[in-house]
Amino acid sequence: MSARGIAILGSTGSIGCNSLRVIQSLGQFKVVALAAGRNIDRLTVQIAQHQPELVSVDSEESADKLRAELAERRISAPRIVVGEQGLVGVATHELADCVISATVGAVGFVPTLRALEAGKRVALANKETLVMAGELMTRAAATSGAELLPVDSEHNALHQCLRGEQRTEVRRIILTASGGPFRTRDRQSMSQATVAEALQHPTWDMGAKITIDSATLMNKGLEVIEARWLFGFSADEIDIVVHPESVVHSMIELIDGSIIAQLGVTDMRHAIQYALTYPARYSSNLPPLDLAKLASLNFESPDLERFPCIALAYRALRTGGTLPAAMNAANEEAVQAFIDERIAFPDIPRVIEGVMNQHETSSVTNLESVLQADAGARTLAAQAIAKLTTDVHVSAA
Amino acid sequence: MSARGIAILGSTGSIGCNSLRVIQSLGQFKVVALAAGRNIDRLTVQIAQHQPELVSVDSEESADKLRAELAERRISAPRIVVGEQGLVGVATHELADCVISATVGAVGFVPTLRALEAGKRVALANKETLVMAGELMTRAAATSGAELLPVDSEHNALHQCLRGEQRTEVRRIILTASGGPFRTRDRQSMSQATVAEALQHPTWDMGAKITIDSATLMNKGLEVIEARWLFGFSADEIDIVVHPESVVHSMIELIDGSIIAQLGVTDMRHAIQYALTYPARYSSNLPPLDLAKLASLNFESPDLERFPCIALAYRALRTGGTLPAAMNAANEEAVQAFIDERIAFPDIPRVIEGVMNQHETSSVTNLESVLQADAGARTLAAQAIAKLTTDVHVSAA
Repeated sequence: MSARGIAILGSTGSIGCNSLRVIQSLGQFKVVALAAGRNIDRLTVQIAQHQPELVSVDSEESADKLRAELAERRISAPRIVVGEQGLVGVATHELADCVISATVGAVGFVPTLRALEAGKRVALANKETLVMAGELMTRAAATSGAELLPVDSEHNALHQCLRGEQRTEVRRIILTASGGPFRTRDRQSMSQATVAEALQHPTWDMGAKITIDSATLMNKGLEVIEARWLFGFSADEIDIVVHPESVVHSMIELIDGSIIAQLGVTDMRHAIQYALTYPARYSSNLPPLDLAKLASLNFESPDLERFPCIALAYRALRTGGTLPAAMNAANEEAVQAFIDERIAFPDIPRVIEGVMNQHETSSVTNLESVLQADAGARTLAAQAIAKLTTDVHVSAA
Repeated sequence: MSARGIAILGSTGSIGCNSLRVIQSLGQFKVVALAAGRNIDRLTVQIAQHQPELVSVDSEESADKLRAELAERRISAPRIVVGEQGLVGVATHELADCVISATVGAVGFVPTLRALEAGKRVALANKETLVMAGELMTRAAATSGAELLPVDSEHNALHQCLRGEQRTEVRRIILTASGGPFRTRDRQSMSQATVAEALQHPTWDMGAKITIDSATLMNKGLEVIEARWLFGFSADEIDIVVHPESVVHSMIELIDGSIIAQLGVTDMRHAIQYALTYPARYSSNLPPLDLAKLASLNFESPDLERFPCIALAYRALRTGGTLPAAMNAANEEAVQAFIDERIAFPDIPRVIEGVMNQHETSSVTNLESVLQADAGARTLAAQAIAKLTTDVHVSAA
């Protein structure tokens, strides 16, 4: 097979860096475009190593810094672009056959949509994209013939489990959840949970936002919505089981009662490689799973009382329209407020639920309706967060 | 889909009875022929319920008994045949699209071969058939275009795992083993193991011979050889992991390190139904697997010292030719001698190893070479068993 062109949105993040390691180890792909935010040091190294034709950063300031850095290290500079237009340029680069969409949060939304419209294979690690506008995304993919391949380990697992099966013969899908750092923490002490504690993920090494989402289990809620759009299952056909070891990445149950599961080590490179090489599988030199060494795999039902974000996500999925986008925006604002220590851990679902109650759900007709829901929810979330912060200050006074 | 004709070899055994339950629940298949041994009471009920056109029993004596029983209960009699020719008649019945081969041990060998030669789909529960003459069986299937579908839960699981995959992209297969009733028993006390203890299988309800095979782990050894013929993997590409809960029925490891597993409740009806309906899956009203309720799945490496039958089976597979058939025959004789309390539990592998050391391996050129190896090994085994029995009597005197 000839070298295929890859563009990466979010190249300096956890998924981006792992993607570049996979590309390097496979040796059959060529990085043609990279988009990053402000991590100019890391981006500089990536440019030196992969020599992309186009690079995007968040602002003109970052672009200037990058140019200076490249000049100083005598690295030949690629074409440099900035902002959302820059991201879209990377996402639709003419030499890119596959776009790895790995920015965190809503910022990857428009570029990912443009990549799908341009008929690119999209290896999707940005689940918010499908949560916000799964209908628009899947419709764009269907129109252009673009392939949408999940990089999330759970959805990547589901994609693998579904390979040999007929959709009509699948009864339900079962997403596994590690349960996060607060799986066994009692409800009372969760209000005292610190940011540092919430960032201690038991099995996966990921970015801050997704790690907090794992602590609230909103990450699993977002994945439920993501699964709906990737695989066409309804809310009633998507279940969650807590599995602390994160070895079984997800499962499907067939109508005859058989369950097919995908298992692996907790290394994102597996899912990234699969999304790049599908339908082929390429050899990997990553250490294989040793079940006898692991000894035990455990399973339990999720505690919906201690983790109200799960029910919020199912509610958003069942209601549909712009509500998932509003929920996602409120979650992003609430998680950031928790990271900034402006609100407590249990306030995250409170903020989200408040926004969902206030949001006037409409149908998703186009890009603008989604962006409007997103912006409106952020305003509502900011108000709710400000009120909570004031309350805290008042009660502390 | 129109009703399809089914013939069952071994209809009154565990697999046979479960097959009839599956056929009844599916309602789209028609039993056209049944072969049983001596269990005339059960066979009579089956004839009344399914009205097969042809029925085979082990002897003229059983046939007379069956005729009398049917007459007494005023059940209209099918055509009745006897012995190996009777079995072959059932296996090649012109209205049978699928033959369920579920006799225990070597008796199913010739009829199964004839079914494959006749181009029938064979749902194979008789693993000895492939152990004895996998090459002949698979060659016959390839020539006639017959499908060979495994009913063994492990191989049925592998068949399901392999559905969406390319053979060249599978690195190895991993057979799970319950570990049997003596999984945690120490080596010393195993010499005192009674027949009753060996018949206490922890997870599966099966016939006596296969349950003893599970206690020695020869069952897993036979399955290793069976897997080689069903799926074309070499001895080095087939591994065993002990999994006491028998929930993960088996797994495959792909070259990219991903593992696909099939899980289910321990009910043979799942595998039987799959073998009948493949490539379609039909709804089943069997209770689904509840992983959260199971809570824990455990895995460990098999203890090759306490269970020498595993190494014997790998040796037979690696050597090939008639050695697997000789091993299988010696095992059948040794297990029967243990059930009859003529030899002790640890004597089973001793008898088998002795026979394998004495057997002069030749290539499997035709049916006769296999039957000759089988007969020769039985003679050697009988001698070894007689010697052990004498020794026991001498030492007891």
